[in-house]
Amino acid sequence: MRKIHGGDIYTNKVKIDFSVNTNPLGIPKTVKDCLHEAVETCIQYPDIEAQNLKQAVADMLHIQNEYLIFGNGASELFMAIVHAIKPKKTVIPVPSFYGYEYAAAASGGEIIYYETKEETQFRIGDDFFQILEKDVDLLFLANPNNPTGNLIRKDNLRTILRHCKDKGIVVVLDECFIEFCDGECSIIQEIEQFENVILIRAFTKIFSIPGVRLGYLICSNMELLTHIKKQIPEWNLSNFAQMAGCACAAETEFIKKTVDYVKQERQFLEMKLRQLGIRVFLSEANFIFLYSEKPLYEQMLKNGILIRDCSNFRGLLNGFYRIAVKSREENEILLNRIGEIN
Amino acid sequence: MRKIHGGDIYTNKVKIDFSVNTNPLGIPKTVKDCLHEAVETCIQYPDIEAQNLKQAVADMLHIQNEYLIFGNGASELFMAIVHAIKPKKTVIPVPSFYGYEYAAAASGGEIIYYETKEETQFRIGDDFFQILEKDVDLLFLANPNNPTGNLIRKDNLRTILRHCKDKGIVVVLDECFIEFCDGECSIIQEIEQFENVILIRAFTKIFSIPGVRLGYLICSNMELLTHIKKQIPEWNLSNFAQMAGCACAAETEFIKKTVDYVKQERQFLEMKLRQLGIRVFLSEANFIFLYSEKPLYEQMLKNGILIRDCSNFRGLLNGFYRIAVKSREENEILLNRIGEIN
Repeated sequence: MRKIHGGDIYTNKVKIDFSVNTNPLGIPKTVKDCLHEAVETCIQYPDIEAQNLKQAVADMLHIQNEYLIFGNGASELFMAIVHAIKPKKTVIPVPSFYGYEYAAAASGGEIIYYETKEETQFRIGDDFFQILEKDVDLLFLANPNNPTGNLIRKDNLRTILRHCKDKGIVVVLDECFIEFCDGECSIIQEIEQFENVILIRAFTKIFSIPGVRLGYLICSNMELLTHIKKQIPEWNLSNFAQMAGCACAAETEFIKKTVDYVKQERQFLEMKLRQLGIRVFLSEANFIFLYSEKPLYEQMLKNGILIRDCSNFRGLLNGFYRIAVKSREENEILLNRIGEIN
Repeated sequence: MRKIHGGDIYTNKVKIDFSVNTNPLGIPKTVKDCLHEAVETCIQYPDIEAQNLKQAVADMLHIQNEYLIFGNGASELFMAIVHAIKPKKTVIPVPSFYGYEYAAAASGGEIIYYETKEETQFRIGDDFFQILEKDVDLLFLANPNNPTGNLIRKDNLRTILRHCKDKGIVVVLDECFIEFCDGECSIIQEIEQFENVILIRAFTKIFSIPGVRLGYLICSNMELLTHIKKQIPEWNLSNFAQMAGCACAAETEFIKKTVDYVKQERQFLEMKLRQLGIRVFLSEANFIFLYSEKPLYEQMLKNGILIRDCSNFRGLLNGFYRIAVKSREENEILLNRIGEIN
């Protein structure tokens, strides 16, 4: 059975999981220690205001702490935003993360899908602006995009955000993978100029803690923040999430190391995959999007390797796959197994 | 600053917390061990279907596993229910848990408060049925009630649920404290007869793990369950919640021991408090509701003891307090400190 999400190690026998895009360097030791410490605090309610976490993350990002709302994973924030805005019309470029569609469906409005094409490397084109009209309330936009790994350049991004601002469209800009990208790719420091933008980030990928559940949003529009907060359940952050999040916020060196490692391994994987005759798309994230006519998913699963079959992404057909950039040792195992396919 | 919830040890200096109603026997050892084990799994996504947890809890409760939905605490479930039903009119008896009002406000309908009175020990009277008319969509009902500790007898409860069924009213029946009560107080085994009822339970109180976040609902109405599921964010349960929940489900002896211990200590506290001249209401839960003209909250806080000042509960005025039933040693400290007040 093929699943709508990666990471399903619960119904498959998996030795190496390339279907989930977490950090190949794993969980920082300080974070793991902190999670063990958190066990001893579980007899107490979490801080409903998450005061320590809020300050730690605000300091890390150099932003005001009142711009932050934390969620039990980014998925909780997507849903809260949708309920706060109650969009009549939502735009989602595809292929992209299924979670946007899932969240948008919770409020029941219309969803318009903007299909990016293989011919243009699945990039957003000028025709995108034609559907971003005044009757649109909400746009979900991932940067870099998942599963393609496409990164929108800052200038282009500003043009889109400004256009949306003019049209009264709220933009949920998902930056869940931005920490893996090389250079200053985020528009976080311009968040005050875009009151229509809600930036989404998560600890899940960059700190390899999907099992903990912790995401956050950044927005400078206080009225919008008030509406969103009302849609978030009380005590939504466990003690594990709050304590681990504080430890993560101190791990700036770990992020730098990750960027270098991922860049080097992504380039290695891209080169070797191309040598194996596989069509590889340009990615700037910690995963690689590719096309092959061979039944890669089934072949890899026979070897205990799980990759992401992307054929169930809206806007994609059979033959598209996504693989995470992992450690050199694991990447080589994958390449060897792919090489063995006749 | 007085807070709207108990358990605020983050802005107060607290040595003993009587404001939170968790199990005086603490966290079972198997559960704590399991939380440490869970740290090692955090690099993986949680099981999005929570298959192991679902089966373990279904077995513990002797119900079908498809009747269950798990939440990141009961608070997440309240909000999901409200968004699924979109009630135009919601009834909430007061005084009761603030979370019902918080959740109901997220969907924006009208809320009707039914005020129970001190003269009738804050019990629901026959006049309750007069407001439960066909224009009501949703009723929140806690059994036992918080903060009063009132338990609705099964016969009376059946009458209310049947009345609501006839009127087309969905009942959210909050049984978060029912495991602490002596005897067969829950109507869980009759859940198939009441398709309009959503039972809510939590691991928070009975297993003393408020820091983990895990609650669940039980409902036999498959259509309603489908609507609620759509309102729950994906991957809402951390690995900690899923693994700890499985360990909890095996702790049936722990629950029995808890019931005996709580009953004995509650009776001890009630007796001693009455001897100190305090007006104590009849409670069948693991907390005691009381009235005193003395400034108990401030006096106890001076001693590093946090109790729940109930004056900010809707329907209550100054002088009402709630204290948890804790260990004999802690209960005696509280009694001694109260005794010292002039």
